[in-house]
Amino acid sequence: MYVELDGQGPRYAQLIRALKAAILDARLAAGSRLPASRTLARELDVSRNTVLAAYEQLQAEGFLLGRVGSGSYVADVGSRVSPNRRNPGQAPVAPLSPFARRALASTDGVRIPGREHAGLRYNLQYGVPLTNPALASAWRREINRAAERAEFDYPDAQGLPELRARICDYLTRRRGVDAQPEDVLVISGTQQAFALAARVLLDANDTVVLEDPHYRGARQIFLANGLRVRGVRVDADGLVPAALPPRARLAVVTPSHQFPTGALLPLARRVELLEWAAASRAWLIEDDYDGEFRFGGRPLAALKSLDRDGRVIYIGSFSKTLFPALRLGYMVLPASLRAAYRAAKWLEDRGSNTLEQAALANFMANGGFERHLRRAAQTLRARRSAMLAGLARHAGQAVEVVDSNAGMHLTAWLRTGSHADCERLAAHARERGLGLYTIAPYALKVSLRPGLLLGYAGLPSADIEAALRLFGRCLRETGLLA
Amino acid sequence: MYVELDGQGPRYAQLIRALKAAILDARLAAGSRLPASRTLARELDVSRNTVLAAYEQLQAEGFLLGRVGSGSYVADVGSRVSPNRRNPGQAPVAPLSPFARRALASTDGVRIPGREHAGLRYNLQYGVPLTNPALASAWRREINRAAERAEFDYPDAQGLPELRARICDYLTRRRGVDAQPEDVLVISGTQQAFALAARVLLDANDTVVLEDPHYRGARQIFLANGLRVRGVRVDADGLVPAALPPRARLAVVTPSHQFPTGALLPLARRVELLEWAAASRAWLIEDDYDGEFRFGGRPLAALKSLDRDGRVIYIGSFSKTLFPALRLGYMVLPASLRAAYRAAKWLEDRGSNTLEQAALANFMANGGFERHLRRAAQTLRARRSAMLAGLARHAGQAVEVVDSNAGMHLTAWLRTGSHADCERLAAHARERGLGLYTIAPYALKVSLRPGLLLGYAGLPSADIEAALRLFGRCLRETGLLA
Repeated sequence: MYVELDGQGPRYAQLIRALKAAILDARLAAGSRLPASRTLARELDVSRNTVLAAYEQLQAEGFLLGRVGSGSYVADVGSRVSPNRRNPGQAPVAPLSPFARRALASTDGVRIPGREHAGLRYNLQYGVPLTNPALASAWRREINRAAERAEFDYPDAQGLPELRARICDYLTRRRGVDAQPEDVLVISGTQQAFALAARVLLDANDTVVLEDPHYRGARQIFLANGLRVRGVRVDADGLVPAALPPRARLAVVTPSHQFPTGALLPLARRVELLEWAAASRAWLIEDDYDGEFRFGGRPLAALKSLDRDGRVIYIGSFSKTLFPALRLGYMVLPASLRAAYRAAKWLEDRGSNTLEQAALANFMANGGFERHLRRAAQTLRARRSAMLAGLARHAGQAVEVVDSNAGMHLTAWLRTGSHADCERLAAHARERGLGLYTIAPYALKVSLRPGLLLGYAGLPSADIEAALRLFGRCLRETGLLA
Repeated sequence: MYVELDGQGPRYAQLIRALKAAILDARLAAGSRLPASRTLARELDVSRNTVLAAYEQLQAEGFLLGRVGSGSYVADVGSRVSPNRRNPGQAPVAPLSPFARRALASTDGVRIPGREHAGLRYNLQYGVPLTNPALASAWRREINRAAERAEFDYPDAQGLPELRARICDYLTRRRGVDAQPEDVLVISGTQQAFALAARVLLDANDTVVLEDPHYRGARQIFLANGLRVRGVRVDADGLVPAALPPRARLAVVTPSHQFPTGALLPLARRVELLEWAAASRAWLIEDDYDGEFRFGGRPLAALKSLDRDGRVIYIGSFSKTLFPALRLGYMVLPASLRAAYRAAKWLEDRGSNTLEQAALANFMANGGFERHLRRAAQTLRARRSAMLAGLARHAGQAVEVVDSNAGMHLTAWLRTGSHADCERLAAHARERGLGLYTIAPYALKVSLRPGLLLGYAGLPSADIEAALRLFGRCLRETGLLA
């Protein structure tokens, strides 16, 4: 009998695996007798106990019949489970769902972070976190403290009550949002807010309105869920209310800092937006993704603060204010949606990770969070200046920079060239070790100009200068700068 | 002018809130002139600078027109946003989705953990984690170590590569599952596996087969997603293959330890199940929820080890082997499903929390995890003995205990009485401070006998004895024990 051991783990386990495979593939036919343990032990150069242990286990599992000593016979298993075939490849044995097919289509070509940064010298992509040693050590302290009092049981699916209370304090003071802890749902990042909205607020074929351009992750999950997505034009003042379609079930908006153009939606447009939503009986999701960081002008209170009839769902993220690996965000829900969202979160994942929630609640309570925000705002201000100066110096007449005075990124529109040129630029830059995002993938209709999303959170000012020098070189090398 | 400050936070912020509310509710009509700052300051007994700061902010936001000094006028905002109404109540301003209505219906009356344990003296409910000081301190150490090397950027959406590698080692050695790191998807607990399956594998109106009784969370998320759920009878050997319906898209099975009856599915039935799946082109989800803990007999390798054509999706949870607050589990996917699941996880939440993944990878690599499992198995063995002895002593002839020799709970069937009696017993026990789960909610058709799910993980042996003494008293007080 020919049996090959694979050398992984203990000998008897190797033997069990090898014999099972032979039985399942019908190389050892049903009814055939196995060699005596002594014989097989000699053949394989293993101890007899090893063979006995393997035979015993295979008998316990039903692969072998008979008793040790009086001979072991192969049970009738293999040929039925596997009539001499194996499916080594990629072909699914049953169909994938329409969701899966749409999810694959909508994320096709998306580089999933953690992989795309490899080999980059400088990364100016949006979404790279603010690297900050002070935050790292403060956060480590909070984690250690939270670990000492760790809970082991299931968390409150709605979120730790202490954390929800701290989020309310914070929103009242900083964003003018008047929320109670029972209105807050803690989620695993902003993306989950869109995934939940797709289910709780919308049914197949319902229409969702997105600003155009917009956050691509929202579009992708809505499309995967079989929803219709309509884009609404954005100008220097953000979403253009006159362009809203007559009917939709939901609009996702970024009034504090339009994503990605950075525009600030004026009050008059906010009012028009609310009127539109009331007239079409639509929900509004306000994504306040970096409303915390403004470097000039006073911040406007959140749209949610104007919401009198429970129509606005406010979402905030700690991926920008702290860091993305945290996987925590939150929603402020109208009273009418609390129960449905709580049930949905419970059914989706039973609640977000407790340890980080506890650490964050404490970080917010002891003032560490706001101290970090102040420090982060200073750092971002300096990096933003470095980026503006560097763009002026190295990108010269090639780009028009839109100065939104806020956030962690800015947009640079190409003065000449097509979208294809812009993609070519990004590809060339990547080869030279510079990470750039083009704006086109963030839009439904590419009616907008070719341009780039330039993040300045992830690099110290000196590196930003060096990165932009390289950027200038890439512009020249692709013929976009004389 | 009457304006009331709410006393929350700085004075100027209070004043801004109060004025906005008055404008939005049209108590301050569009076009009306606000009092001079000096006048209002005197009226409210605040400094003039407070009033000036508030006016300035309201002008910046567009609520007021005019310039400070020459008088401030109310902009035309309030009456349009809010024509004198407020929606204080629960009525949604737009319809909820069918998913949301079904989610609410399917979770109606579900007590969400973290709330239901309040006031209990003894908790014999299923799902209470194994309390274990050694684990707590070992885990704290791992968290501290992981926090020192914390990553800040987005995680790999599929799960930390180190953790996926450790899970593969573990499954090969302990469960006979031959998996590669690229087959593994790290998820936020088992519940997410069902939520993802509902989307990736199934479309509206597809049929899912569940063992009956089964894990309720799976049924709820499938129902919420608009799927048809069919139950299949379970006997002392687990799922009865002959009872499988001719067609279904997916079956969820618990071959190692049927949930909740504890039965171990024999090899012959495993083979029949695989044959059924091949004939109906169905996927199989193997929920190996506590396959790690067996106290007698040898463990059978996982069903997945028999899967030759990429049909079985294996799911494991760290909620049972470690603790539920961790919110981590994993799936082993056939090659044909990897890309679709990765896209789905990316679109749902961008990946699970990194810190715990890193801590867990290290805990598994340095042997701490298996050490914990060995210790936990000893503890569970002792607690299980205490429970069996206590039931024999105090519940006498009232219950028939099914001894599955595995896991963290057992089932106790009432010898007399109806399902209503069983519910009455649980309610009475709760009043006396004893937490019990009845089995009925875990079944689709309550064709099974009335019984209880008794968890023994959460209490030391002495408390189990005391809890069962109380249980005996409750049985007598409800007339179920003479």
